[in-house]
Amino acid sequence: MSKLLETIAAVVPPDADAMRFARARQSQLTKPTGSLGRLEDLSVQLAGISRSLRPRVEERAIVVMAADHGVAKEGVSAYPQEVTAQMVLNFVRGGAAINVLARQARARVVIVDMGVVPELEPHPMILSRRQGAGTENLAAGPAMSREVARSCIEVGIEVVEGEIAKGLDLVGTGDMGIGNTTASSAVVAALTSARVRDVTGRGTGLDDHQLAHKVAVIERALEVNQPDPRDPLDVLAKVGGFEIGGLAGVILGAAVHRVPIVIDGFISGAAALIATRLCPIARDYLIAAHSSVEIGHRVLLDRMELVPLLNLNLRLGEGTGAALAMHLVEAAARILSEMSTFAEAGVLDREQPASEGVPGGNR
Amino acid sequence: MSKLLETIAAVVPPDADAMRFARARQSQLTKPTGSLGRLEDLSVQLAGISRSLRPRVEERAIVVMAADHGVAKEGVSAYPQEVTAQMVLNFVRGGAAINVLARQARARVVIVDMGVVPELEPHPMILSRRQGAGTENLAAGPAMSREVARSCIEVGIEVVEGEIAKGLDLVGTGDMGIGNTTASSAVVAALTSARVRDVTGRGTGLDDHQLAHKVAVIERALEVNQPDPRDPLDVLAKVGGFEIGGLAGVILGAAVHRVPIVIDGFISGAAALIATRLCPIARDYLIAAHSSVEIGHRVLLDRMELVPLLNLNLRLGEGTGAALAMHLVEAAARILSEMSTFAEAGVLDREQPASEGVPGGNR
Repeated sequence: MSKLLETIAAVVPPDADAMRFARARQSQLTKPTGSLGRLEDLSVQLAGISRSLRPRVEERAIVVMAADHGVAKEGVSAYPQEVTAQMVLNFVRGGAAINVLARQARARVVIVDMGVVPELEPHPMILSRRQGAGTENLAAGPAMSREVARSCIEVGIEVVEGEIAKGLDLVGTGDMGIGNTTASSAVVAALTSARVRDVTGRGTGLDDHQLAHKVAVIERALEVNQPDPRDPLDVLAKVGGFEIGGLAGVILGAAVHRVPIVIDGFISGAAALIATRLCPIARDYLIAAHSSVEIGHRVLLDRMELVPLLNLNLRLGEGTGAALAMHLVEAAARILSEMSTFAEAGVLDREQPASEGVPGGNR
Repeated sequence: MSKLLETIAAVVPPDADAMRFARARQSQLTKPTGSLGRLEDLSVQLAGISRSLRPRVEERAIVVMAADHGVAKEGVSAYPQEVTAQMVLNFVRGGAAINVLARQARARVVIVDMGVVPELEPHPMILSRRQGAGTENLAAGPAMSREVARSCIEVGIEVVEGEIAKGLDLVGTGDMGIGNTTASSAVVAALTSARVRDVTGRGTGLDDHQLAHKVAVIERALEVNQPDPRDPLDVLAKVGGFEIGGLAGVILGAAVHRVPIVIDGFISGAAALIATRLCPIARDYLIAAHSSVEIGHRVLLDRMELVPLLNLNLRLGEGTGAALAMHLVEAAARILSEMSTFAEAGVLDREQPASEGVPGGNR
């Protein structure tokens, strides 16, 4: 059995008992039940994933996968392709937004070269897992073969397993790749049957004319390739990207090892859509960090029934939203672990008539 | 001149030059301009407040003001009045949600007794600034005199000035007081002329019948007291609360000393509405932490043209939302301070044709 099939088969649902205990504990903590809103739900999810009422979220990593896209030659991005490699070097030097926000989040940044066009000089901070010098132009034919698509996902599983071996309680996903919103829109359109124009946005900043061109390129890609919506691997191969496949693998690898995954924006979302089509249970390990400006992001989150934690009009990628949201994940875990119950604190609960005289009450 | 008038007169707008420089720097950082959305706007605000491109947000405090409300006897809360004092003791012991989230945010919790019903035993962690043993029942007459209302605000100014003397770069507001959503709804209705039912929510968890009763109590309060919407001090005195006045003072005191204020939920918002009616410039020092479940919160934020950072269905108060949002404030400051520019990183910007050969580019 392949690594991919083995992984998919081994993912099990979060623990229902732990979730029930966590929900019960939330109702005993010194606050009106439900008053911490989504943090309470998140704490229950973390309890189910970790099988614990004290979920650990200390060891953190953001896996940032970079790759180039043959479709960039169609003029679908406001930036030249060279920027992909330049930004990888910026990640290495610590000057990019993801470096700043990951430092704040106390998360290590794991940089993976999944296939940037110019081969980068070997560097101890870059994991070289190249699947080619960028994908083929998906507007003219398949972006990659089915074998390479599978390899991308398996590489992602192996990368996250390597991080788990070093210690990992919480993983975030991130991406870099000029042209990758085009591939992601194509993946989402193919897997959801949404209209291309309803899932295609301005990426790094296209004007109206350029956006119309991008939509036309993606429509051509779907026409030329005819990806099968029931076959996520076919969709990834024909209209996806190396980093999109890699991130799908990170998600599956984390889910099988019961590590919660904070998914960043649109590219990570497209990867999550592929991962959850391959393995629906993996969805319960996902935490949607934020709602991206890219219009297709909302569509794919809705399909997965995921509600994003933040809405800050982000559209950068790199894992920046995931890094920001880790603070909220930690908050949810801490609430469950550290707050006092009504009984411990001697505070009257609404469910108990005041006359019952809780110890320490009526001061 | 009174402390209050002196403070109001001394508040000046954020520095326009610093804001312009910050905006220019954001456009040079290695990301598409605007791609960090609201974090970019927030960084510009912080630059204007601090007059610096490296705004400091290290020293943090959440000022949690507690008081009781005479209107509690009308049965407007799901919890008995004793809970106010019990929760103050829970804050002292570190077991409440605000303690947990403030620890995570590296913010000290400053607990102020503005007038809890049972006089609390002196404790080094509680600042006793009692304005009475709870307010009078605002449904039957004024909650407090105009003199006491002014005193509440001046106490708030002094409390935050005490914290500034210890070192304070960022302050959050928080509240505790059974019955205080009733007073806050009355304040918002009085100051905005919104209908009571459009600014009155379920507080800690009222059912439909109890909610209708709460609306009727507030309508009676406005009828009995006839607060003057052009006179914020009159509104505070007649239908407000000690902690609401105190928090308005914290806001004014922080603004005059150029300290940004993260306002929490509905009660803090009512305080902010009073503060900004007294001193409109203070609005530019405010950061709205989150959008509360309380329906009046959105109304008051809209009136102040503030957009909340988080939307997590919180309705706890205590400053919990403010503590959570401090992470985003720090992120905004770090982005401005720590990210590399395109020129520093040797990354091609879209505005520069690739042929110009930025140093280090074209790898």
